[in-house]
Amino acid sequence: MSMSSEQAAEYKRHAAELAAEMVEDGMVVGLGTGSTAAFAVAALGRRYREGLRFVGVPTSLATEHQARELGIPLSGFGEHERVDLTIDGADEVQRGTLNLIKGLGGALLREKIVASASDRLVIVADESKLVDGLGEHSLLPVEVTPFGWEATARRLAEVGAHVSPRRSRAGDLFISDGGNLILDCHFEGIDDPAATELAIGSIVGVVESGLFIGMASEAVIAGPTGVARLHVAAQ
Amino acid sequence: MSMSSEQAAEYKRHAAELAAEMVEDGMVVGLGTGSTAAFAVAALGRRYREGLRFVGVPTSLATEHQARELGIPLSGFGEHERVDLTIDGADEVQRGTLNLIKGLGGALLREKIVASASDRLVIVADESKLVDGLGEHSLLPVEVTPFGWEATARRLAEVGAHVSPRRSRAGDLFISDGGNLILDCHFEGIDDPAATELAIGSIVGVVESGLFIGMASEAVIAGPTGVARLHVAAQ
Repeated sequence: MSMSSEQAAEYKRHAAELAAEMVEDGMVVGLGTGSTAAFAVAALGRRYREGLRFVGVPTSLATEHQARELGIPLSGFGEHERVDLTIDGADEVQRGTLNLIKGLGGALLREKIVASASDRLVIVADESKLVDGLGEHSLLPVEVTPFGWEATARRLAEVGAHVSPRRSRAGDLFISDGGNLILDCHFEGIDDPAATELAIGSIVGVVESGLFIGMASEAVIAGPTGVARLHVAAQ
Repeated sequence: MSMSSEQAAEYKRHAAELAAEMVEDGMVVGLGTGSTAAFAVAALGRRYREGLRFVGVPTSLATEHQARELGIPLSGFGEHERVDLTIDGADEVQRGTLNLIKGLGGALLREKIVASASDRLVIVADESKLVDGLGEHSLLPVEVTPFGWEATARRLAEVGAHVSPRRSRAGDLFISDGGNLILDCHFEGIDDPAATELAIGSIVGVVESGLFIGMASEAVIAGPTGVARLHVAAQ
């Protein structure tokens, strides 16, 4: 399915606003990163101005900046045991499992840390992100420590990835908010995401991969026929 | 067994010099970090001056500095597919398995990346480091990303660790060469190191733990009765 970027933006906004309605008074809310999550942060800024009280935990410097401008009070992890609800986008959402590929925007590590500490992770996306198998359209980003990244890239190739280090527009190696590099990995389909996550995660030098397995509790997906709220299908 | 620090230094030097004899012309050699590894680097500097030709891959900024002063040519990973032989110390070496705890010195990530890319990892230590069970004497260092480290510490506590963030002498959080924090974890003995490594490694926010499972091929251990060369025991 192809859609124009104006249409896609409208769907993203629609999904994001519906997810923002899930936030309740007193919650600690994880604030995602990327174009769809930005619509959710904007909607949360409106709800804050209307009197809803919550604390945000931003997943990137960009989101922190946006939330501050909107007057949303922010917090790190030091003060909170848990995050109640995180709203974030995804590059791919697998039908049924709600397993995800995330991090093409470069914030995967912080997004994964916040998601991991969240009671609920709600994914917002337009329906072009919904796939039957992960890796169909998206590269899998893998965040790695700069030291020895060439050796780490070779180990990723051994588990089936075609590896390209992400670069800035100027051609330099891209540096994440966490000071790491991103290796964009193309796989010929990811048949068993949990096994791939385990194989990648046990490579020394890998900080985190963009595979989010069993982390999303629901997804709000908008498209031409409206908005669907998806939950993880029973196995 | 207790030994004076002078005795211990003598044993360390003895083990390190024997390991340095294993380096052959043309090798790519991983250079470890810490007081025992420093004796090996010193011995390798002497061998270089005597005409042995090899390239060193340092595991820390401190080792890089020492090796440069000795005139050892250095390299990163970009140019080499593999490291032939790495000589490094350890905080604990388990009898039989040669599983290790490493990284009390703060260089565990780089040490583990180099070890992981090495055909042979030779551990040098005085015999006070030899233990029946890992975690008997040593804390297990776990390198974690600074973002959200409090949440990561809570997840480590859930798998049985008593967690202390490592601090500098001034009381600030210690920052590793890789820009991460170190959480020193006390366990009531680590009965199944491979399972502990897997449990720790799957916590989001953990970069690497100081458990080196199945990585050491041999250990050179020196004590009052002489030097022993240990190999991994058949299971």
